[in-house]
Amino acid sequence: MTTPLIDEYRKKASFDVNTLRNIIDGEEFVEAKPQEDFAKALAAIDALETFDQGTAARYFLHANVFGSAVRSLGTDRHAEILRQTEQNEIVGCFCLTEVSHGSNTQKMQTTATFDKGEFVFHTPNIGAIKCWAGNLSHSATHAVVFAQLYTEGRCQGLHSFVIQVRDMKTMKPLPGIAIGDMGEKPGDWNGVENGWMRFDHHRAPLWTLLNKGCDVTLEGKYVTSFKSQSEKQSVTLGTLSIGRMGIITKGANACILATTIALRYSVARRQFGPPNKEEMPVFEYPLQQYRLIPYLCGGFVIKIFQKRFQNHFVEYMWRVMSGEKSEELAEMSKEIHALSAAAKPVSTWMGIEALGEARRACGGHGFLTCSRLNDLRESFDPSQTYEGENNMILQQSSNIIFAKVYQILPFKTILEVQMKEPHTRTPMGTMNYLLDTPKKFSGFSNCIVEDVLSAYKYLIRHLIETSMRDYEKLKTTGKDSFTIRNEIQVHRAHTLSIAYGEHAIIQWGLEFVRDIAEQKSKQVMQRVLSLYSLFVLDKHLATLYISGYCSGPEFGDGIRSSLRLTCASLAPDAIGLVDVLAPPDFILGSSLGAEDGRAYDRLMEVFLKHENESPPFQKDLANFLVQRSNNNSKL
Amino acid sequence: MTTPLIDEYRKKASFDVNTLRNIIDGEEFVEAKPQEDFAKALAAIDALETFDQGTAARYFLHANVFGSAVRSLGTDRHAEILRQTEQNEIVGCFCLTEVSHGSNTQKMQTTATFDKGEFVFHTPNIGAIKCWAGNLSHSATHAVVFAQLYTEGRCQGLHSFVIQVRDMKTMKPLPGIAIGDMGEKPGDWNGVENGWMRFDHHRAPLWTLLNKGCDVTLEGKYVTSFKSQSEKQSVTLGTLSIGRMGIITKGANACILATTIALRYSVARRQFGPPNKEEMPVFEYPLQQYRLIPYLCGGFVIKIFQKRFQNHFVEYMWRVMSGEKSEELAEMSKEIHALSAAAKPVSTWMGIEALGEARRACGGHGFLTCSRLNDLRESFDPSQTYEGENNMILQQSSNIIFAKVYQILPFKTILEVQMKEPHTRTPMGTMNYLLDTPKKFSGFSNCIVEDVLSAYKYLIRHLIETSMRDYEKLKTTGKDSFTIRNEIQVHRAHTLSIAYGEHAIIQWGLEFVRDIAEQKSKQVMQRVLSLYSLFVLDKHLATLYISGYCSGPEFGDGIRSSLRLTCASLAPDAIGLVDVLAPPDFILGSSLGAEDGRAYDRLMEVFLKHENESPPFQKDLANFLVQRSNNNSKL
Repeated sequence: MTTPLIDEYRKKASFDVNTLRNIIDGEEFVEAKPQEDFAKALAAIDALETFDQGTAARYFLHANVFGSAVRSLGTDRHAEILRQTEQNEIVGCFCLTEVSHGSNTQKMQTTATFDKGEFVFHTPNIGAIKCWAGNLSHSATHAVVFAQLYTEGRCQGLHSFVIQVRDMKTMKPLPGIAIGDMGEKPGDWNGVENGWMRFDHHRAPLWTLLNKGCDVTLEGKYVTSFKSQSEKQSVTLGTLSIGRMGIITKGANACILATTIALRYSVARRQFGPPNKEEMPVFEYPLQQYRLIPYLCGGFVIKIFQKRFQNHFVEYMWRVMSGEKSEELAEMSKEIHALSAAAKPVSTWMGIEALGEARRACGGHGFLTCSRLNDLRESFDPSQTYEGENNMILQQSSNIIFAKVYQILPFKTILEVQMKEPHTRTPMGTMNYLLDTPKKFSGFSNCIVEDVLSAYKYLIRHLIETSMRDYEKLKTTGKDSFTIRNEIQVHRAHTLSIAYGEHAIIQWGLEFVRDIAEQKSKQVMQRVLSLYSLFVLDKHLATLYISGYCSGPEFGDGIRSSLRLTCASLAPDAIGLVDVLAPPDFILGSSLGAEDGRAYDRLMEVFLKHENESPPFQKDLANFLVQRSNNNSKL
Repeated sequence: MTTPLIDEYRKKASFDVNTLRNIIDGEEFVEAKPQEDFAKALAAIDALETFDQGTAARYFLHANVFGSAVRSLGTDRHAEILRQTEQNEIVGCFCLTEVSHGSNTQKMQTTATFDKGEFVFHTPNIGAIKCWAGNLSHSATHAVVFAQLYTEGRCQGLHSFVIQVRDMKTMKPLPGIAIGDMGEKPGDWNGVENGWMRFDHHRAPLWTLLNKGCDVTLEGKYVTSFKSQSEKQSVTLGTLSIGRMGIITKGANACILATTIALRYSVARRQFGPPNKEEMPVFEYPLQQYRLIPYLCGGFVIKIFQKRFQNHFVEYMWRVMSGEKSEELAEMSKEIHALSAAAKPVSTWMGIEALGEARRACGGHGFLTCSRLNDLRESFDPSQTYEGENNMILQQSSNIIFAKVYQILPFKTILEVQMKEPHTRTPMGTMNYLLDTPKKFSGFSNCIVEDVLSAYKYLIRHLIETSMRDYEKLKTTGKDSFTIRNEIQVHRAHTLSIAYGEHAIIQWGLEFVRDIAEQKSKQVMQRVLSLYSLFVLDKHLATLYISGYCSGPEFGDGIRSSLRLTCASLAPDAIGLVDVLAPPDFILGSSLGAEDGRAYDRLMEVFLKHENESPPFQKDLANFLVQRSNNNSKL
């Protein structure tokens, strides 16, 4: 055991930690714009959830999901509920998901039927029981409930309601409502009270309908200002997008927490070494660096991306709430949907991978609960499936891309005509290149990130073409479009959405880094972005070869040797980069990842708590062993 | 909610479940050979650990790890300890790992110093505290302890001892010994009592030295029959290989448990569907099949491989214990080491991936503890790092391959001369092809598995050459061989070991399937093997393009379309295949994976246990809300 080396490693950094932290954190909250309350709320939750995602979720579900739903779907008659929500006089929860339907929101089976001036809520079968509603099991007094509205003898489609579910004094469920918990879950989520709710002809007043754009009169007549079913749906379900914004951050946080713990421990842990020399920190192994540093870079780049995306989103929400109804805003809505549906999977999968790799990179000690790594993996795990299962929402993203491309050009033209500068300009610019003429690899430039972006553009074009070609081919067999869209996912549309998301993350990263004025920060961030870009592109190398983008060893070897060299070049900066984004020790909560690098001292603190324990079964065991011994000696 | 469809899916299987189960399970225990006790013991533990790896581990550590160490490293004077172990009159544990050393076994720092006819055990610093010893925290009465032996004024190297650590009656640690638990761990391992032990000049008699091949006389003289330090080490540490055999099975078990739960649930879960039709089971989505069926195939193929490997290993152990000292046996020892060091990572990584993918493929409900998927992932998680951290042991595998190649040919010859049929025959045949002249891709044959094996042979040869070329290049820079070996891991030696392991698994799978007489079983197993082979090769596609094995789209597109087609062709057989290897419900322990396919009924059983719970804090919450409301109305 020797003195911690971490401060030696800190000195190696080529940049100033505080300067870079200020650049990454930005100073968004200086100006006093009205939309900034919303941005501040998101930032506060972001900070809270590094500590405990469960607590953060409970607050977010009440204040932001329940509250936002009432605000954006309701009207003046729901002002009092909103006030009570903001003043924490009631506890809200959000009930959309049912036992047998999550992703397919339109198939929810709970009914709300107009009867004698009231709505009657009912659960027709066990598959229609509401579930996964956080805060519901024991605490929620009110709920936003989605149900199929029946009036005038027919189903008017899925609508949302805000109803009281518990007596405010006894906290017992109101008549016609049964509520329970869904049972144990892993990680931080065990405290979130994910509950289920079954209605048995529960009656609620008419004002509970969240009636923006539609209403039911006292006589039971359904009135609506929506022009189409799909317009109504997009308003009803648009409120869900806010969740995905936050979840993109979760992927970045997972990367940062994982690599903070594993890289700091790698500096403390020594194992093997050159002949006749002291054992060296496992950090020095190129493979160990390769396993961890790309995820650290992922944490930075995704965080930068998410901040810009969130600014766009806040602007978008502001324009929607201000009543704007422009074509550009409709385009922006689609682009936000496509981008969030691609970036959420890309980010959360990387986060879960990072936590798994960090655990393994810490060896056996990483498996101790005191490392916090496995608990973190459990706590981040659901980010892959909530607010849209990752694979399912990737399909939404490619569908929007296809629609965008078809909107500009009919399929045949795309494949057969070499276009001159066609455009697919979008409000956030993430689809501008879709119809550019893609260029094959002809050599590396002096900017590897630009090279990676060029490869992505070719890849994305290739995937659009192969998806569409297979789509057209399958259409001739008489299959319906639902079936065909499912059959072109693997290796094609599914990969397309991932590549689209990664391209946008890298593109915005590049624009961010270009704008950094301070040179040392800029230089290290160029390498951070390069490593992330090379790392994610590497997974598409085979497809790039198949697509004809490149042939022979030059491109593949070039990408991989750049990957190794960039990773090695970041090694001296790694501990400094960790310090830029790592939370303080009491939030990190890991024996292995403590800022002072004294992992072994922290481990010993845990070990010594259990010295010479003498659990009651020891006596039984001793008796058993003696008895075995006596019996055997009698034989 | 409709009647479970699982029996409909069962009827689709093209083969008979019981026939195939008998073929996979084999009838190894029919003949009465003496080595079969050992094989039976391994099979019993295998069955137990599907239920609870923790309980299995505790028994295995006592009977097999502690017991085997005393048997293989000790002599007649340890017969009584062995008898007590077999009769369960004592509880054994195995203390090799220390707080600051795991993989680097030779660097253990605990000392055993000869003093006045006894050994004095001492822990020189906190890094030298023994840890991770299962059974130790509260139960073990005896321990095999590895320590640096000091006598005649110098260190004689790492030796093993069997000592009593607790008083048999009081269960208190003996004088000079402190014992404690390491604290909480995830999953099944929390009950394993992984303990730590610190010596403070603890004295033990001379007979405690496990003295096969060496001894210390009453006068403190060190005598040995080992010719070299490395011969002694290989005997001392050879006893560890047995663990890796069992761990290869863990990967297969993880694949089987994961896909049993997720595939059965996918049949029960309906979501979306073609226009105007009933919603379809998510099992029918090609992407869902693609996410799960390859892991099911992995479970079959790795299980088949592991059984053959274990037979080889049992034969090897038997020959060693019979005193054989042939050159072939020495070769076999190396091959077992190389193959287990490659197959253990390949198998356990796939198992952990399978559990993660299964959890995600079950959507939100998969995250409930009652699905058992996350608990299983936690319980299988350490298989990636114990008995050799996966990345570290992969390096051992490539080192043996390099030595094998160098042994036949000097480096230059390999690169520059086109050899005519050079041979690298090995006892188990897994390295026979290493110096065959590799052929480039020139078209697919009518056996895709043979095509995959050809690609692997080219890949492996390419990786040997690039590793060696970079090795020679780095040597000219004056770096030492330890440093160079680390620098050629990423993309080269590391990938080589993985490819070597995968090739062996596929090769043995092919030989197994060829020998199946019953045609329907044979046909489905051909597709099972094809899918596994294509799935693992796909990850090397980019490297194959870089290596020059193929160019243009033909090979890559061919592999990927075969992958999709084989996966689709196995879909009707998937539920039948699950039934072949799935454990009974009470062992599977998953609400989602029950054999009768009634996932929703099982979920409801869990949910209803928590109906209308009223935890004490509800009253406080109600008071808080009322108070908030009163305060606000006063304002």
